[in-house]
Amino acid sequence: MTKPTDNWLGDEKLSGQLAFLAEIDKLKNVLRKTFLMDRSRHENTAEHSWHVAVMAMLLLEHANDGTIDLNRTIRMLLLHDIVEIDAGDTFAYDVQGYADKEERENAAANRLFGMLPEAQKDEWISLWREFEEGSSPEAVYAAALDRLQPVIHNYYTGGVSWRANGIVRSQVLKRLAPVRDASDKLWAFAQEIIQKSIDQGLLKDDPKE
Amino acid sequence: MTKPTDNWLGDEKLSGQLAFLAEIDKLKNVLRKTFLMDRSRHENTAEHSWHVAVMAMLLLEHANDGTIDLNRTIRMLLLHDIVEIDAGDTFAYDVQGYADKEERENAAANRLFGMLPEAQKDEWISLWREFEEGSSPEAVYAAALDRLQPVIHNYYTGGVSWRANGIVRSQVLKRLAPVRDASDKLWAFAQEIIQKSIDQGLLKDDPKE
Ligand SMILES: [Ca+2]
Repeated sequence: MTKPTDNWLGDEKLSGQLAFLAEIDKLKNVLRKTFLMDRSRHENTAEHSWHVAVMAMLLLEHANDGTIDLNRTIRMLLLHDIVEIDAGDTFAYDVQGYADKEERENAAANRLFGMLPEAQKDEWISLWREFEEGSSPEAVYAAALDRLQPVIHNYYTGGVSWRANGIVRSQVLKRLAPVRDASDKLWAFAQEIIQKSIDQGLLKDDPKE
Repeated sequence: MTKPTDNWLGDEKLSGQLAFLAEIDKLKNVLRKTFLMDRSRHENTAEHSWHVAVMAMLLLEHANDGTIDLNRTIRMLLLHDIVEIDAGDTFAYDVQGYADKEERENAAANRLFGMLPEAQKDEWISLWREFEEGSSPEAVYAAALDRLQPVIHNYYTGGVSWRANGIVRSQVLKRLAPVRDASDKLWAFAQEIIQKSIDQGLLKDDPKE
């Protein structure tokens, strides 16, 4: 598909919104390291975004902060990975990839959200930044879910992505820091699923010093 | 994957929620008639659900009803097709498929949402029913987006799904009734995209009497 340049109803704002809508279809072709639960294929970022948004509804009662705005959380999660259309999925444990992640993602945010009408662009970029910076209880809760979801996938797929990439316990625990901050209950769950994963040989323990 | 029966933290409610989370991963394997914008493959229902939830954020300003609760709308859209895990995607223009759609989907809703803790089950089933019945301004707006999205996909993929299934103008217009009810602006857009589709030979006009 060429980038849509249709001028709908002679309305520049609406045309920008519809061009954005068509453009973000590409997120369905951005593949993550995680596998579907049935191991049939890699997960893509669009369906991941749906899954974590449902998680936000599902697990809200377990957030420590009882005042979390679910709407804000879900909107953040729906948008949080759109920059991957240009910047690609940076694997959670890829140190090199993280070096220029911010730069790549900022450029992506400007191009993609830049298709939107001005006020909406500003609002959506600031939602995305709030998530990236973890600068609100909603952002921390959202990040917690985004970090937990691949752990659950790894557990139910026999640790396929952990094993393929030689991941060890301390790396997973470090990624899960937002869970510790967002929810005592989910943090206890995270400890349990990691321990079970180690006991079942799905995840390696750290090498002894 | 076998259905997860892990008892997390000895907590039956949390375990049910996590079993549900793992179960709905299957929505990523339910294929729709529509194609991705790049025509590389069919769209699945999980990524479709993400796309329409983003649409709800994107196009809210065009809803006629200025009091629409976006949070309620998005939650409805995230859940609206989960029943397809058991009931399958019923093609919009499949008259036979629609005959027992309600029965199949009710059974699916009871099994799937039945994995949730009681209060959550009741809440989520009633959100799903609200969408199905179009019984609130949020449900009508949500349905409008759900109906518009495949039309936009058809337009940008050269009408591939319309042409493969011999769809004509009046069938598309009939499906779009919720758009007419939800938004004057989006209804005008729908007219324009259908007319362009006919002019470009992507969609057939109705046969002359
Ligand atoms: Ca993510």
